Formats: sequence, structure tokens, C-alpha cells
Amino acid sequence: MKSIVKRIGIETVQDIEVINITDTVKETVAASGVRDGIVYITTMHTTSGITVNEGLPDVEADLVSMLTRLAPEFGDYQHQRFLPSDGQMAVNSCSHQRSLLAGMQVAFPIENGALVMGSRQTIYFAEFDGPLYREFVIHTLGL
Amino acid sequence: MKSIVKRIGIETVQDIEVINITDTVKETVAASGVRDGIVYITTMHTTSGITVNEGLPDVEADLVSMLTRLAPEFGDYQHQRFLPSDGQMAVNSCSHQRSLLAGMQVAFPIENGALVMGSRQTIYFAEFDGPLYREFVIHTLGL
Amino acid sequence: MKSIVKRIGIETVQDIEVINITDTVKETVAASGVRDGIVYITTMHTTSGITVNEGLPDVEADLVSMLTRLAPEFGDYQHQRFLPSDGQMAVNSCSHQRSLLAGMQVAFPIENGALVMGSRQTIYFAEFDGPLYREFVIHTLGL
Repeated sequence: MKSIVKRIGIETVQDIEVINITDTVKETVAASGVRDGIVYITTMHTTSGITVNEGLPDVEADLVSMLTRLAPEFGDYQHQRFLPSDGQMAVNSCSHQRSLLAGMQVAFPIENGALVMGSRQTIYFAEFDGPLYREFVIHTLGL
Repeated sequence: MKSIVKRIGIETVQDIEVINITDTVKETVAASGVRDGIVYITTMHTTSGITVNEGLPDVEADLVSMLTRLAPEFGDYQHQRFLPSDGQMAVNSCSHQRSLLAGMQVAFPIENGALVMGSRQTIYFAEFDGPLYREFVIHTLGL
Repeated sequence: MKSIVKRIGIETVQDIEVINITDTVKETVAASGVRDGIVYITTMHTTSGITVNEGLPDVEADLVSMLTRLAPEFGDYQHQRFLPSDGQMAVNSCSHQRSLLAGMQVAFPIENGALVMGSRQTIYFAEFDGPLYREFVIHTLGL
């Protein structure tokens, strides 16, 4: 059995955005040599997410809009004060909330060396506190 | 190690509904011959979900009601216009949003050939854009 | 390949709270002897969740606050009536709804015997219907 952990760095450019990482996942699985198994993709941050949806700009904009509505930037938050551990004001409680709603990972089966996915499924890294340098992990496990 | 990918087709009958697929998952795991490992269930669509909750009609109705409230059918959506790629009007932005909130998959351990689940846990295929023919995948991985 | 299923009991003390279980997960992985593989943590209940966020009391309070806002305790719920199967009134529809939003599990890669996690990632058992005795499962799978 192979277990291959690949760290991927990404520079996000907006406060909130969804970035299509489907090709990176497919290439990583192909390079792993795993023919039958599982791949799952996990963010390493608590103000971001990994999610799957359809790769249409309209749909992406509406997902962002929903998260902004359900977890608004300004609210009656406790996490909006000076944080000694960070040396600055905490202003990203909404980013943590959006992360909970979006989820931090997704998985797909690998069969005969290819991902088993629906034709419209697109894998996204979701930034909720950008712009920042971010890392996510693609873990391929199998034979 | 075995890695068995099983595709399941399902005909949904309502615009939004949750369909109990627990028995299908259990039967698929039993048929796989895997004694110790993992099973996870993944939808192949971006306007549906896989989720776990208690198998009571009242609870199911309230889950549907919450998703309808948090991602309403009509809103200030960008994804409500003629889509050349589909040859029709896009009217399902709320379906994509509900899919993000519900999640696309769940997993359970397999121990001595049986799923490790709580007594009230019921696995659902969640339709958010029906009625449609749908597919989900049950992937059993282990020894 | 090893597949080790560990059940953990926990006594929650509030109606809704998030409990840091990161150390329990790390200790369980270390004790498993698995060097390369996956660990995932799954709740066994439908009115609780497993989620990852930053281990700051302010952030935790705001996550609880968001879930309470999106799935309020009192609503136009069907699941608020006498339940013969339970011998009491159902009053926890909001708990089931919060469970859907939070999700029931998370996974991390194991590499050289250690979890691959971001520095701020904290694993939580999320109680939505306490106080209760609860169980979650830590499943370690790999070589």
C-alpha cells in the first residue's frame, strides 16, 4: 500500500474566493502511481475550506454570496478585539464561521488510476481570509 | 487490500428530499467481503448531498425546511439567466448552495464486517434539484 | 495494513459547546503504531458534530453563536411533539439541524507517525443536545 502526502502552496488574491484545484488533484493522483484507492484534499487552515461544486462563475459567485450572508463580516462577535498572541486586532470571526459551513475536506475514489467524479464536480480551495499564502494537502492512499 | 467502487443509481421524485440509503450501504459493505476498513459514500452531483441524521420523518422535514430557509429558491442570484451550455435557464442556484451546506459525503469504519455506527444514525442521499436520475458511489476499502 | 477502531466516551456539560479533542486524537494515533495512513474522527450521534477550527475561546463562542442563529432553538418545527418511541416531547430539532451544518467527521493524514495538521487546527467534538454521555470513534488506518 502507498500513502503519499503532497503539500501544495497557493497564493490567494481576494478576501473571499473559490479557486479551482481539480487539475492539481488529478495530476497529483496520476503522479502517485496509485491505481485503486482514495484521494482526499484537506486545508491546513481554519479560515478556509475545501468544497465541491459546479465550475460555473455564476454558481461560484452565488456560493460566496450565501456564505457572506450567513456569516456576515460584521456581527455581535466576541472575536473582534486585540489579540496579544497575534499582536493585532482579530477581525476574522466570519472567516472561521464560513470555514465551518464550507467544510475542510473532500474525498474521491481512485479506480484504474483515475478519480471517480461526476462530470460537473469541480474541487475548490475556498479562501475566507485572504489574500494569504495557503497550504492544502492531497493525500493519496491505495495500491 | 481490497478497493471496491460501487455505483448506485436512484430516481428521486421531489425537488428537495432526503432518501434513506442506509440499507444499501450495509448490503454493499457485506457483499464486498471487507472485514476491517472504511466505507464512504459520495454523491456524483453538485446539486445534491450525502448526510447523516436521525431517521424520523419530523426531523427530515425540519432539515429540508432549514436548508430551504438558509438557501431560498428565489434570491439575488447571478446564476439565474440563460445558460448556452445547458440550452435553458439556470434556476437552481439554491440547489448548489444547499449542496455546499449539506456536504457531499460521509464515512464509517468497518469492523468485523459491520459498519460502526450509532443506533440513530441514518445515511441519506439528499436531493436538491429533482426529480432526476442520480448516482452516488459507495467505496469500500480495507482487508 | 492496520485498521484500529477506538471508541471514546465523553460527558458533555452544556446544551451546546465545542470540546477540544485534539490531544486524544494524537495519543490514539501514537498508540496505534500506524506510521503512514489516515485517521478520521466520527461522532456516533445525530445531535452532535465533529469539526475543526482555531482553538481560541472567542472563535469557539462565535461558532456556537452562528449555529444558534442559523438553527434557532424555537422555530416552526415539525419535530416538536410527543414522541412515543422516546416517551417524551421532542424538543431538539435545532440540534439535528446544527449537526447537519457542522458535519459529523474530519480526517487527517498520518506521516511518519504524526498527524499532518496546520498549526492552528484544533479538532472539536461539538455537542448540540447536552448534557449527555457521548461517544465518538477514532479510526486509524494504514501501515
